[in-house]
Order: sequence, then structure tokens, then C-alpha cells
Amino acid sequence: MKLHIAVLPGDGIGPEITQQSVKVLKAVADRFDHDFYFKNAVVGAAAIDSVGDPLPEATLDLCKNSDAVLFGAIGHPKFDNNPDSKVRPEQGLLRLRKGLGLFANIRPVNTYEKLLDKSPLKRDRIAGADLIIYRELTGGIYFGDKSTAEDGKSATDTCTYSVEEIERIAHLAFKAAQQRRKKLTLVDKANVLETSRLWRKTVKEVARAYDDVELDFLFVDNAAMQMILNPTQFDVILTENMFGDIISDEASVIGGSIGLLASASVGEESAMFEPIHGSYPQATGKGIANPVASILSAAMLLDHFNLTKEAEVVRKAVEISIQMNVCTQDLNSDNHYSTAKVGDFLEGII
Amino acid sequence: MKLHIAVLPGDGIGPEITQQSVKVLKAVADRFDHDFYFKNAVVGAAAIDSVGDPLPEATLDLCKNSDAVLFGAIGHPKFDNNPDSKVRPEQGLLRLRKGLGLFANIRPVNTYEKLLDKSPLKRDRIAGADLIIYRELTGGIYFGDKSTAEDGKSATDTCTYSVEEIERIAHLAFKAAQQRRKKLTLVDKANVLETSRLWRKTVKEVARAYDDVELDFLFVDNAAMQMILNPTQFDVILTENMFGDIISDEASVIGGSIGLLASASVGEESAMFEPIHGSYPQATGKGIANPVASILSAAMLLDHFNLTKEAEVVRKAVEISIQMNVCTQDLNSDNHYSTAKVGDFLEGII
Ligand SMILES: CC(C)[C@H](C(=O)O)[C@@H](O)C(=O)O
Ligand SMILES: CC(C)[C@H](C(=O)O)[C@@H](O)C(=O)O
Repeated sequence: MKLHIAVLPGDGIGPEITQQSVKVLKAVADRFDHDFYFKNAVVGAAAIDSVGDPLPEATLDLCKNSDAVLFGAIGHPKFDNNPDSKVRPEQGLLRLRKGLGLFANIRPVNTYEKLLDKSPLKRDRIAGADLIIYRELTGGIYFGDKSTAEDGKSATDTCTYSVEEIERIAHLAFKAAQQRRKKLTLVDKANVLETSRLWRKTVKEVARAYDDVELDFLFVDNAAMQMILNPTQFDVILTENMFGDIISDEASVIGGSIGLLASASVGEESAMFEPIHGSYPQATGKGIANPVASILSAAMLLDHFNLTKEAEVVRKAVEISIQMNVCTQDLNSDNHYSTAKVGDFLEGII
Repeated sequence: MKLHIAVLPGDGIGPEITQQSVKVLKAVADRFDHDFYFKNAVVGAAAIDSVGDPLPEATLDLCKNSDAVLFGAIGHPKFDNNPDSKVRPEQGLLRLRKGLGLFANIRPVNTYEKLLDKSPLKRDRIAGADLIIYRELTGGIYFGDKSTAEDGKSATDTCTYSVEEIERIAHLAFKAAQQRRKKLTLVDKANVLETSRLWRKTVKEVARAYDDVELDFLFVDNAAMQMILNPTQFDVILTENMFGDIISDEASVIGGSIGLLASASVGEESAMFEPIHGSYPQATGKGIANPVASILSAAMLLDHFNLTKEAEVVRKAVEISIQMNVCTQDLNSDNHYSTAKVGDFLEGII
């Protein structure tokens, strides 16, 4: 198979981890005789620094003309504590999601037997946890009208959802549930929010077409509790943009390191693959960042193109590396490997 | 001291737990020679059922004319799954908060040595955790304009904050930090939301008056992770309404049972005390609900009126009950006591 892959390393540890995924994808291409073409482009703080725009036209064009995007991470502290700065790295990511129409962000969470003890949660609570979060990614309060009053004395954000926006991701989530344990939990705040009530109503209607899937509902505050009390109760979680952001980051603690968690963002025409962790500025350039989340995102990329065997090989390689303790310091404090060494090891066994 | 206390038992387990707090407050009044007068009023689903309004005028009036409100819980599943119902129990609580001007909801989270093993989190992560959340309670997306399009095809919620709304709770939170470990963490999503940027800016300005307090910032998604990874890092957390709802419910897992967590909601003129748990409809009338969250809320009521010794006696009594295993089934699965028996025990030792 021929695939054109746009590589957007971004900020902080983005470049070093993405480099490992590219290594791994090249090894896969070699072994299975595919042609993967990689082209790099800038985004985020890196792009602000070089061209003054967190998502340069050329970057968006490259992404649109590629089959898939491999994304690193975005964000730099110099912008976070400056509420007045008009240009922010995150705008690059948000405009990219919107520009490519990536309406569904898919975040699987599971555990590795070998790593259960790394988790802050007790073993018996998390053993067997295996859930997947479908987070709506191009709507809600992230993309609604925003304003600050002229006198600077008040600010407003707006959260809007349409039936259509809810339906399209609901279908994806129900289909995923059919392939899994046939349970879907909608997380919302329908006792307070009008948009949540539209979600509940619409998802109930979509559910009729999937009567083999059991549908239930959880208020987001309760979901934040249940995720820790009893994560094995979940199969597919469906939720809106902001709740998905919070709940999926929270869920990342289950497996013992956020450095393991991959995601796919998909739309009608494009697909992007990125770790769920951020740019982790304190670790930049130190060779301590875990590349596995990015590498497992690359595995999701392979799956997306039905390269199932290839994706399996990557996942298997990751399992072996964990089994053999070839891990960065977040997972292996005694005898840790650098970011690049983990990449080399995986490249070597693929 | 003379205190007029409005008692709003509400729905589900609300009445049975509130009854225990009243017992405890009466015991305190006896022992310390105070005059506490209690008057009951309906709210929530109970009020919808009896008078068709989740917050009858008479209830609000009683609260306004009392020194404090003791609140049980609100909510009934028959309303949750009916997105079309125009009257909902939760409106009663929201209107009550707004009507009484209760702009700050204060939720302390700590652990009991004896109960550390009940927590889903590992002992070494939570031992010594002692944090307090200041959640803004009458602004934000809960109270902003809401609408559904005529054709039912889209819905909108609005989140607005003014500098004034942010300042008044920020002052309370900084003052609390000064009495504690002098650290304040603002939880927001300033990399995306305009309102969060206003929070960040305003809180930075308020901070100048409290230069003995260390101020830091955390994005809400990261905060949801940090709360589980390392809860002992927190002292005072300050945040807006919706984030506070989610983060504080999440934090409730730390101590081992949400049935232990109390809260105070305060404003210029009124104060209300309520457990953070909900109406727990499945448990209603079974005598299994833990009354401790409500009883510790009563202790916060005593504190509010500077009855510090009295509040200490209540907290001490709760500690003894936990020490002696006089607990409901959430904490003591072998030999559990009923809701009323726990109340009787505490009444007896005060
Ligand atoms: C960087 C930020 C805008 C982003 C988000 O909140 O969507 C990130 O937290 C994520 O979850 O991908
Ligand atoms: C019942 C509901 C409206 C309420 C809220 O979200 O504020 C509850 O969850 C709480 O936290 O007190």
C-alpha cells in the first residue's frame, strides 16, 4: 500500500517521540512491502516562532493532501501564563482539527499486566479495564463564540451542538460498541445543560438502529468518580468535547503512565494520530519521554487503513518491550532506556 | 447562641441522613447550651410532587429568614431520562443557590487513617491528602442563557463570568490558603476558553494582596489526572462552577467513600450546608445511607458561626465512630450499622 503521511512534530517532546513512530512505520513498510512517504511540517509554538502562525497555510495544505497525519504535541508555557497573548499554540491544533473535519477523537485505555503496579489505583480495581472513549472534537465550547467585554470586565464562551454533530459521532461509537462488549455510556450533564439534553435525546434516537448495544447515561461528575472507583464497568464512552478532554485525561492514570495512551482523530476525509499526552516541556530534549503513546498512535493509523496485521505487529512489539523492561523512566526507574533507544528496539524487532 | 436553621431534606436518601444531622445538632445545643430552632421545608422532586415547583416560594422565604440552611440531596431518576420535562428537581437547587447568593461552595477532602484501605487509590498516594476545593457556585455555564432552536436541531449553553464574580470567591480562597499550607491552585482551561483567561488574569491580580500564598495554575484536564496521581500536592483549589463540580466529585474517591464528604455554600447573607453526594435513589429508605457527610456538613455549619469547639466535638465523634467501626455498609461490610444507628451513636457520645 502507498500512504502519504504528514508528520507534524510540534512542540516540546513532540519531535523526539514522533521520530520514533516514523522509525517504526518505516520498519513496518519494509517488512510488509508498503510505500510510506513522510513529509514534515511545522505547527504550534514552533510555527509561531518560525512563521508567526500556529497553523501555517502550507501545513494545513500538506495535511489535506496526505492520507494521514502523524501529530506530536503542542503547547509551550511561555504562552500559558500570558492571558493577553493573541496567538497561542493550541489554536494551531484546534484549527487543524476543524480544518480537517476531525469530529471524532478515539482514545482507547487498557492495562498491561506487567505495569499494573505502576498505577496509582489498586490492582483489583483496574485489572482487565478495557475501555474506549469517543470524544466529539470539533464542536461544543471549544469552537463556540468567545468574547470579552470592551471594558475587560466580563468574558463569555458559548457551547453549541447540532443534532447532526451528535449523530455522526454517535454512529461511530455504536459501531465500535458492536465490535466490542456492546455497551455504550453517554457522559453528559443533562440535569443542567441544554446541550446535554440534546445529546441525550439524539443518542437515544440513534440507539434504535443498534439494538444489540446496551445504552446507559452518566452525569459527568459521577463519571469522574466511576472512572476511578470501577473502570472495568465501561466499554465505549461517548461524550462531548470538553467532558471528553477531562474524562480521557483522567482515565489515562489507570494504565500507569499517560505515556502509553494513543488516539485517533477521524473525519469524513482525513485522519490524524496523536498521543494523548501534551508537549511536556520540562522533558524536552532530555531523551526521557516515552515514545510508546506516539507509536501506538501509529498502530491506530495502520488499523485505519485496514493494515490490521501490521498494527498487530506494532502492538506486539510494544508488549515485548514492556515485558523485557525496555522502557523509559516513567515505567522503569531502575534501568531505563532513552526515547531513541526504545524506538530503536521496536524498529529492530519489527 | 440562638440559631434558626432551615432543614431541606429533599429527595432520595436526603430525609434519612438529614434527620441524623438534626439529632447531632440537637445534642450539641444541649451540651453547649445553645438554642437551635429547626424548620423543615420541601425542595426538589419532593416539592414537584407536592406543589409542582422544585423550589416553592415558601421554601426560599424560610431559607432567607433563617441563619443557615441544612440541605439533604436532590434528584430523581424519573426526571433524568426525560430530556423534555420542563420542571426538574435540580432547578430547585440551582435557584436556591442563586436566590440565596451562595457564590462559593467549599469542599474539604481528607483521609482517615483507618479507612485508607477503602480507597481505590494506593495508600502511599493518598496518605496525608488534605485539600479544600473552592468552587464558584452561582455563575458560569450553569446559569448562562440556554436555548434550543425552534426546529429542535441545535442547542446552546452560555458560560459567562465577570471580574467581580471571580474576585469575591478568589478572596475567600486566598484567605483559606493563608490559614492552611499557603498554596492555591487555579484550575481552568485558559488555553482554550476566554472565561478561563479572565479567571487567570483576575486571580493573578487578587494574588497581589496575598503574597504569602503561592499561586499556581493547572489546566482542568491535567488537574483531573493530578488529583489521582498525586493528591497530596494540593492545598486550596479554586475553580469555576462546572470544573468544580467534576473535580470535587472525582476527589471524593480519595477518602474511600463519597459518604464522608461535606460542603458549605456561602454568600454575603446566607449559608447552606450539604453533603456532596446526591440523592442515591437506589438506597432510599433502606437505612444504608451514610449520614456522616451530612453530619460533617453540620459541623461546617457550626464552624461558620464560630462555634469552633462545638464543630470539633462533632468531628471528634465522627472519628471515634470510624475508629470503633460504627459505620454504614459503605465503610464496614462485615458488621454494619444502619443510618439511624450511626446517628444515635454520635448523638450519644456528644
Ligand atoms: C492542547 C489542548 C487544546 C487539547 C484539548 O484540550 O483538546 C489537549 O488537551 C487534548 O486533549 O488534545
Ligand atoms: C444536582 C446538581 C445540579 C449539582 C451540581 O452539579 O451542582 C450536584 O452535582 C452538586 O455538585 O451539587
